Amino acid sequence: MLRVITLMTDFGFSAAAVMKGVILGIAPDVSFIDVDHFVGPQNVREGAMILEYGAGYYPDGTIHICVVDPGVGTARRPMAARFGTQIYVGPDNGLITMMVDRARREGWPMAFYHLHQPRFWLPTVSNIFHGRDIFAPVAAHLANGVPFTDLGSPFDDPILLPIPSLERTPDGLQGEITDIDYFGNLATNIRRSDLTDLGEVTVRVREANIVGLVQTFGERPAGELVALINEVGVLSVAVSNGNAGERLGAQIGDRVEVLRS
Amino acid sequence: MLRVITLMTDFGFSAAAVMKGVILGIAPDVSFIDVDHFVGPQNVREGAMILEYGAGYYPDGTIHICVVDPGVGTARRPMAARFGTQIYVGPDNGLITMMVDRARREGWPMAFYHLHQPRFWLPTVSNIFHGRDIFAPVAAHLANGVPFTDLGSPFDDPILLPIPSLERTPDGLQGEITDIDYFGNLATNIRRSDLTDLGEVTVRVREANIVGLVQTFGERPAGELVALINEVGVLSVAVSNGNAGERLGAQIGDRVEVLRS
Amino acid sequence: MLRVITLMTDFGFSAAAVMKGVILGIAPDVSFIDVDHFVGPQNVREGAMILEYGAGYYPDGTIHICVVDPGVGTARRPMAARFGTQIYVGPDNGLITMMVDRARREGWPMAFYHLHQPRFWLPTVSNIFHGRDIFAPVAAHLANGVPFTDLGSPFDDPILLPIPSLERTPDGLQGEITDIDYFGNLATNIRRSDLTDLGEVTVRVREANIVGLVQTFGERPAGELVALINEVGVLSVAVSNGNAGERLGAQIGDRVEVLRS
Repeated sequence: MLRVITLMTDFGFSAAAVMKGVILGIAPDVSFIDVDHFVGPQNVREGAMILEYGAGYYPDGTIHICVVDPGVGTARRPMAARFGTQIYVGPDNGLITMMVDRARREGWPMAFYHLHQPRFWLPTVSNIFHGRDIFAPVAAHLANGVPFTDLGSPFDDPILLPIPSLERTPDGLQGEITDIDYFGNLATNIRRSDLTDLGEVTVRVREANIVGLVQTFGERPAGELVALINEVGVLSVAVSNGNAGERLGAQIGDRVEVLRS
Repeated sequence: MLRVITLMTDFGFSAAAVMKGVILGIAPDVSFIDVDHFVGPQNVREGAMILEYGAGYYPDGTIHICVVDPGVGTARRPMAARFGTQIYVGPDNGLITMMVDRARREGWPMAFYHLHQPRFWLPTVSNIFHGRDIFAPVAAHLANGVPFTDLGSPFDDPILLPIPSLERTPDGLQGEITDIDYFGNLATNIRRSDLTDLGEVTVRVREANIVGLVQTFGERPAGELVALINEVGVLSVAVSNGNAGERLGAQIGDRVEVLRS
Repeated sequence: MLRVITLMTDFGFSAAAVMKGVILGIAPDVSFIDVDHFVGPQNVREGAMILEYGAGYYPDGTIHICVVDPGVGTARRPMAARFGTQIYVGPDNGLITMMVDRARREGWPMAFYHLHQPRFWLPTVSNIFHGRDIFAPVAAHLANGVPFTDLGSPFDDPILLPIPSLERTPDGLQGEITDIDYFGNLATNIRRSDLTDLGEVTVRVREANIVGLVQTFGERPAGELVALINEVGVLSVAVSNGNAGERLGAQIGDRVEVLRS
């Protein structure tokens, strides 16, 4: 059985390939999963969303290397973390924000380690590619069974980004768009459980008013705006066989209101 | 020896990664091949072309997960299929059209199964991501040796899309453009065997008349339009070191005529 | 332990997938690393830069299949090469230029082989997809331990492209931009060692004058132009958290001057 290492970066293809070369030189029997190498350059918030997106679906012990790292080579800490059965390796710059939020909701135990033991890094460490020189070799050593405490020291104050706000209003809820995916579907920070006491609802985003939720896209004719609970359990706005982001000119951070009908 | 699972979706990167996480949790010793995760959104016809493109080149027992699935969560059936030594897992929506056509020509035995046994799916099935919740776990169980008949029941009327038409004319043949690849090369539905009795030919597409076929691009100066038999044995129009699709403003479905010279 | 095969092509996704299918049919226990499948179409110079970029970071015995091959099907030779512990398989068209340059600097032993033994190829070889029909099966046989001398014959005159020029001037150095990466960072052909006797320098590229080198991006405010030694040891021009290529309208081949301050 191969140990699983996922990679998420804002590097494009060829730099990520070099990280895999480094890993296979230390831990030859790992299985790679590329999560995304086209995160928006230096977009830590987007990386934090993507890291949490697949939580709960990877095998126990999976190591997630995430390198969206505008502060590379500065005083920002290199870190590893444990969230229940899953492991994070990357910069301490907020990339784990949504995983921490998730772990708190799920009750997953967490631990954070400041990586400061260069004997587990490449012999020469550049100032601008810690993905290759620190995070890849550390992940490989973790895959080989090296304990966290050999790689660094525990700490308890990781950098966390502000989390999009969700407010109860007299008429319902107010949240925001947190992600726009490849299909143009708009994800929000409003969860299925937030909606349980509202009964039938109308969803307002940009100039659109969408009455009621559907179970899936195909319930409505192609081209119609729909609201539904998406595959990770949050309220989402979509166009059946179309692109809601383009239709509405929506942006991440736009306000989303849910009103009792 | 690892069992091979290929993936083709219209999801972009990160959703496909979650499918791999699910698979490795059930079948840890598989080898993944990403075929394409940027099929045009909901473009079932394009997915059907890509699925057939590599037929004959994958190891025996390869499982091809294909998820271009505008009808996810509706009454459309989840299915698995066998085409000779190759296995398909995905929606019953026409994605197998060109594989069925190929299998008929090659004499590969076929069988189709309606997947209806939730005990081989994830415990919670969303209405909008069957790639993760049904097709990934089913493919993993197939890789582990679970027989088709445990996963569902045989059926014999899979959805098939219309196949682009090819007609004999008094002067030769009339077919159409079926694909435009990354280089801008135009593939057609006219096969090498369709041309054997025509002798020297002229190929007409859009406003271009191309006299004779070449063996390879480099036979002509850079920038020249050429017609040739491509790597899967169909008539193709290209520009040597250039982009024929852009040059001719060609679209999939455009008429292609082959005339005796 | 799995043998590592990397792939770099200008094919986009699905053609590269077929190459992997061919390889796994011959050598089932290899580990793939995708380096890049979106090299500029027929851009051999770009492929040559990418091949050298990761040199020194892959495990011993790694086989690098590179197929940027405008001359496919013409008289250009299919070849394999050894550079120290690393193996190249692809066309003889200049793709190895920067690896040869690197190997000379590092003192890595080199050997070149003309592949001319069709018994190690697919039974049917197209004129336009040697990646699938020749290079993939040859790489798989190499992974299985077939010696170079069974696959072809040694030769000593591989095609090499001109290397970007670097000149000493009365005031310092003059080189050029050799690559613009996904972040818009401009790499040059000026190495760290070329700068050691110059003391403090000013870097001129397009209309910009950048005084002094920094250690990493984050030393300067976001949006500021900086010059630094990049992750492979060459002088590079970047914008902190921004895109230097767009800012300066820079092109590969643009002149870069380094002047004593």
